[in-house]
Amino acid sequence: MKAVVYRGARDLGIEDRAPEPPGPGQVRIAVAYTGICGTDLHIFHGDMDARVGASAVIGHEMSGRVAALGDGVSGLTVGQPVTVMPTRACGKCPACRRGNSHICHAMNFLGIDSPGAMQSSWTVPADLVLPLPDDLPLDHAALVEPVAVAVHDVGRAKVTSGEHVVVVGGGPVGVLIAAVARARGAEVLLVEPDGFRRGVASGIGIEVVDPGPTDVVALVNERTGGAGADVAFEVSGSAAGVGTAVDVLTTRGRLVMVAIHPQPRPVNLHRFFWRELELLGARLYQREDVVEAIRLVAAGVIPAQELISRVLPVAGVTDAFTALEGGGGVMKVLLDWQEEAR
Amino acid sequence: MKAVVYRGARDLGIEDRAPEPPGPGQVRIAVAYTGICGTDLHIFHGDMDARVGASAVIGHEMSGRVAALGDGVSGLTVGQPVTVMPTRACGKCPACRRGNSHICHAMNFLGIDSPGAMQSSWTVPADLVLPLPDDLPLDHAALVEPVAVAVHDVGRAKVTSGEHVVVVGGGPVGVLIAAVARARGAEVLLVEPDGFRRGVASGIGIEVVDPGPTDVVALVNERTGGAGADVAFEVSGSAAGVGTAVDVLTTRGRLVMVAIHPQPRPVNLHRFFWRELELLGARLYQREDVVEAIRLVAAGVIPAQELISRVLPVAGVTDAFTALEGGGGVMKVLLDWQEEAR
Repeated sequence: MKAVVYRGARDLGIEDRAPEPPGPGQVRIAVAYTGICGTDLHIFHGDMDARVGASAVIGHEMSGRVAALGDGVSGLTVGQPVTVMPTRACGKCPACRRGNSHICHAMNFLGIDSPGAMQSSWTVPADLVLPLPDDLPLDHAALVEPVAVAVHDVGRAKVTSGEHVVVVGGGPVGVLIAAVARARGAEVLLVEPDGFRRGVASGIGIEVVDPGPTDVVALVNERTGGAGADVAFEVSGSAAGVGTAVDVLTTRGRLVMVAIHPQPRPVNLHRFFWRELELLGARLYQREDVVEAIRLVAAGVIPAQELISRVLPVAGVTDAFTALEGGGGVMKVLLDWQEEAR
Repeated sequence: MKAVVYRGARDLGIEDRAPEPPGPGQVRIAVAYTGICGTDLHIFHGDMDARVGASAVIGHEMSGRVAALGDGVSGLTVGQPVTVMPTRACGKCPACRRGNSHICHAMNFLGIDSPGAMQSSWTVPADLVLPLPDDLPLDHAALVEPVAVAVHDVGRAKVTSGEHVVVVGGGPVGVLIAAVARARGAEVLLVEPDGFRRGVASGIGIEVVDPGPTDVVALVNERTGGAGADVAFEVSGSAAGVGTAVDVLTTRGRLVMVAIHPQPRPVNLHRFFWRELELLGARLYQREDVVEAIRLVAAGVIPAQELISRVLPVAGVTDAFTALEGGGGVMKVLLDWQEEAR
């Protein structure tokens, strides 16, 4: 079988490896499609070498079919379409003890801390395997993991029908948050400077504006009778995005911090005080978020086809990463593993 | 009667004025004691001249007795001890329409936007007057308003029994938050660099540390099995205080922003993301917070006597402001209006 391995910064190799037979409690999956996440790009850039070892198999967005079951595994059948929730909590750390195992302090993240999905045959613990509906196309199903992120983020904000929601940043996660919030009945406005991304978002019926020429705060105030938005999602990772997400909010508005800001950002704390705003960090997802993501993708609430910009053969993995790091011109890029030798 | 009027930066005058008879729906109060708040200090420094007009009567922390009732006022009797909730909402702005009238966009704050409590006879709308228990000393009752702030802040954090709470900043509001959180059953640690303030806090049984020699984060982690605090209150107004309040928190910990930070502060947003922290702005109070504050002061849960550093005659008003702006050496300072001509 084939596997994409991280050899070092900007150096991904495709290696022939022997499939790993499933041990007790494990499942071997024939991988169909893998997606590429912002975290995979960080790995590609060499920014995560402290966690990602040499020759590590990366990737954690995927779909596939059960290929073999280890001893003691029940509830799954060979050939069944599945996806994997790629996080294993330790069960012992303070986060796990508080019921927040999804942000475990000692998280084993498959594709970062242990072998990931970018291999034609992936062997994982059975409790991380989630069945997919038979009629869900497997390329669409490769989006379940980022959709679970969006479901978790929207859930953190407790978005309700009729609320005004501003999503700052229209990359894949921002667009998915917009789609999930819309499915909850919210009035959604997406803010994104890149023209290609705006085109994808408007193509799936999401209202999107360019923050360059648009006074986003004035626009939101105009639409809300001067009140401001109920919820903002900061998904841009930029200092300007943080400012916009704070300034658009109404009294007791909720700002969900989705993006990774490696350095401290200046935040208008007086505005938090004055309007009694809330800032909510949101990271990863819980199992129920993944289940809900499967439901939303299968129901067509997430227009997966329109979000998949390219599907490349495994040989094109470096091209796929290079296209994504440019930021423009592509939304989701998948690798197709179905033609690889098993 | 006498009144303290703001004439301009660092210039407070004491003037003789005629008492204002109560109109329909109003109550005239014979003021007993007034406190001095951080906001009063801002006015004294000339920082609020846009809101506070020339010859304005300032002050909003007070206790007194009903002196006269206007037409149509029921439920109050002359001589009854009372305090005043000094905020009037417009009822029409977006905040009021959302049920957040306590942070009304067009708030009329008595003592800032209209005549305040620092006069021996104060005429106010009857719906802002709250009765006090007959046996509550009126000097203690002058602390009700800042206690209501603390009640509101602790309520925003939904502090529950057994939770670990860190209060960063041990001025009057910080100490009151610590006392209210303790009354909710929390394990409270106060962080305060000033020795006098630490002495007052420890004198009322609150554990307090000096952040200079103390590694506050290490101390909190040690006491919580490495987890961190459930709740932090930022009451210091300093950039360092913000950092401490973020760094001490456990997963999904809540940070309540009480202090006023006039300029944007660098905030570790990655930590908010990573630990799914929450930041909650908290400002002023609702009527039920004032009612609860009266109960807590009357029950002795708030050790009012120990927090009142000095009681000065009205003639000493400038001395009182000067003592407070130094920050050290005093906690609450009251003016005694009972000897003034009515």
